[in-house]
Amino acid sequence: MNIGILGLGLIGGSLGYDLVNRNHYVWGTSRNPDTCRQAVDRGAACVAHPDWQAIPGSDRADVVVLCGPIATILPTLQAIAPCLSPDTVVTDVASVKSCLCQEAAALHPRFVGGHPMAGGSGQGLAAAVPDLFRDRPWVLTPLPSADRAAVTLLQTLWESLGAKVWELAPAAHDRAVARISHGPVFVSASALVPPHGHETQLASSGFFDTTRIGGGNPQLGRLMAQYNREAVLVTLQENAARLAWAIAAIEQERWDDLEAWLQEAARLRQTYFPT
Amino acid sequence: MNIGILGLGLIGGSLGYDLVNRNHYVWGTSRNPDTCRQAVDRGAACVAHPDWQAIPGSDRADVVVLCGPIATILPTLQAIAPCLSPDTVVTDVASVKSCLCQEAAALHPRFVGGHPMAGGSGQGLAAAVPDLFRDRPWVLTPLPSADRAAVTLLQTLWESLGAKVWELAPAAHDRAVARISHGPVFVSASALVPPHGHETQLASSGFFDTTRIGGGNPQLGRLMAQYNREAVLVTLQENAARLAWAIAAIEQERWDDLEAWLQEAARLRQTYFPT
Repeated sequence: MNIGILGLGLIGGSLGYDLVNRNHYVWGTSRNPDTCRQAVDRGAACVAHPDWQAIPGSDRADVVVLCGPIATILPTLQAIAPCLSPDTVVTDVASVKSCLCQEAAALHPRFVGGHPMAGGSGQGLAAAVPDLFRDRPWVLTPLPSADRAAVTLLQTLWESLGAKVWELAPAAHDRAVARISHGPVFVSASALVPPHGHETQLASSGFFDTTRIGGGNPQLGRLMAQYNREAVLVTLQENAARLAWAIAAIEQERWDDLEAWLQEAARLRQTYFPT
Repeated sequence: MNIGILGLGLIGGSLGYDLVNRNHYVWGTSRNPDTCRQAVDRGAACVAHPDWQAIPGSDRADVVVLCGPIATILPTLQAIAPCLSPDTVVTDVASVKSCLCQEAAALHPRFVGGHPMAGGSGQGLAAAVPDLFRDRPWVLTPLPSADRAAVTLLQTLWESLGAKVWELAPAAHDRAVARISHGPVFVSASALVPPHGHETQLASSGFFDTTRIGGGNPQLGRLMAQYNREAVLVTLQENAARLAWAIAAIEQERWDDLEAWLQEAARLRQTYFPT
């Protein structure tokens, strides 16, 4: 297939490696000409150029994947839509979907939102790796009006990279990621209290794990809250109510109730991560 | 040295492996005769018997380590104190110290509280492993009245296993572990909300890490709150206030403030875990 990747960062670059390895014609764009050169040198694209229209065959792409930051998705689509073939399937990889799927489909009818649930601690093309999506969920969020052939094409393509493709309505996707990804960032960050002195020497793997995503990229955390505000607030209110319940149980020394609450937490975790 | 281990579980068994490997005379006790047999078979003790007084040389121990659950520490010490040599140094491995160090020292003047900050996901002798304490903190919590020779003896012994020994007052220890270990259990558990359906397929490593200790042993979590109640409550109030602050910032769409808060969280985490 002829596949364009707009944005050659962690996700776009990793996608490029996998698609080149499967013998697709992969072209890419980045505002930075150095990134374009590096992407071709490393095998994350067959051709790359800051101006997509300068790339041979870009007007006949089967699939275009918008891999820039979430705030760039709609402006980018708006800019390229007039020059796209109506047959081209367009998708994206942003982690919030309700705020853009409707508008994107209005700009280009063959748009189907997507969200690969994979990542890494690094950023940019330097952090991109082959096989990032293997055995990871990849959610597609078609509107009811979506072209089913476009959905099937994307499903087949991402499954060929080893991803497990799920289909969800944009709002259902956003509620789910608020609960398992965006909300937990703020719960995790709330565990980070200023040390009095000794704690820094004593902190171990439990504290390391609990605070990992709360101590991650601050800009990314901000964008999650900003673009998925409503669902994140619902989740965080629920988390705050749970914490308040535990505090009250400890204050009132209701130890059996507290143990039952922890037992329920252990049972819930089993439903997320069966052993 | 002649070293007794009372309680052959995860900590007691691991300690036994390390001390036997360093050619000490290690004897152990467990209520369960099978555990005693297994400890000797596996090399976690030279001799083991449910009745410590039936073990040759137990009346001349240089060190006795109380490795049972926290609720058993004082009753066990009370039972053995009359038969202990006054020269024997007694210590324990419980994760809360204020509630028992004073009383333990009254029962046996050469008692010095201790807390190895190491563990594992399993329980019992089956989960015990050699080298569990290497490069891990081991806190000693002597009272001001403590016998310094006893403190030095324990410090040298635990350092010989590769542990990093710290000395803290019992209350300072309890405040520190509330912030980095006991409190985070409840913050972590509060992130575990009942799934609506899709979340269980989509949850990934971030959610896995954030909820790990909250989904751990419910009885252990209960005991942490029960025995370290005051310090845990102070920490959890602070965590709840932080979460409430983040919720308010998101409600009021103060995105720059929220990003600054996440930046501060990332900086705090760096002080705990420098990269």
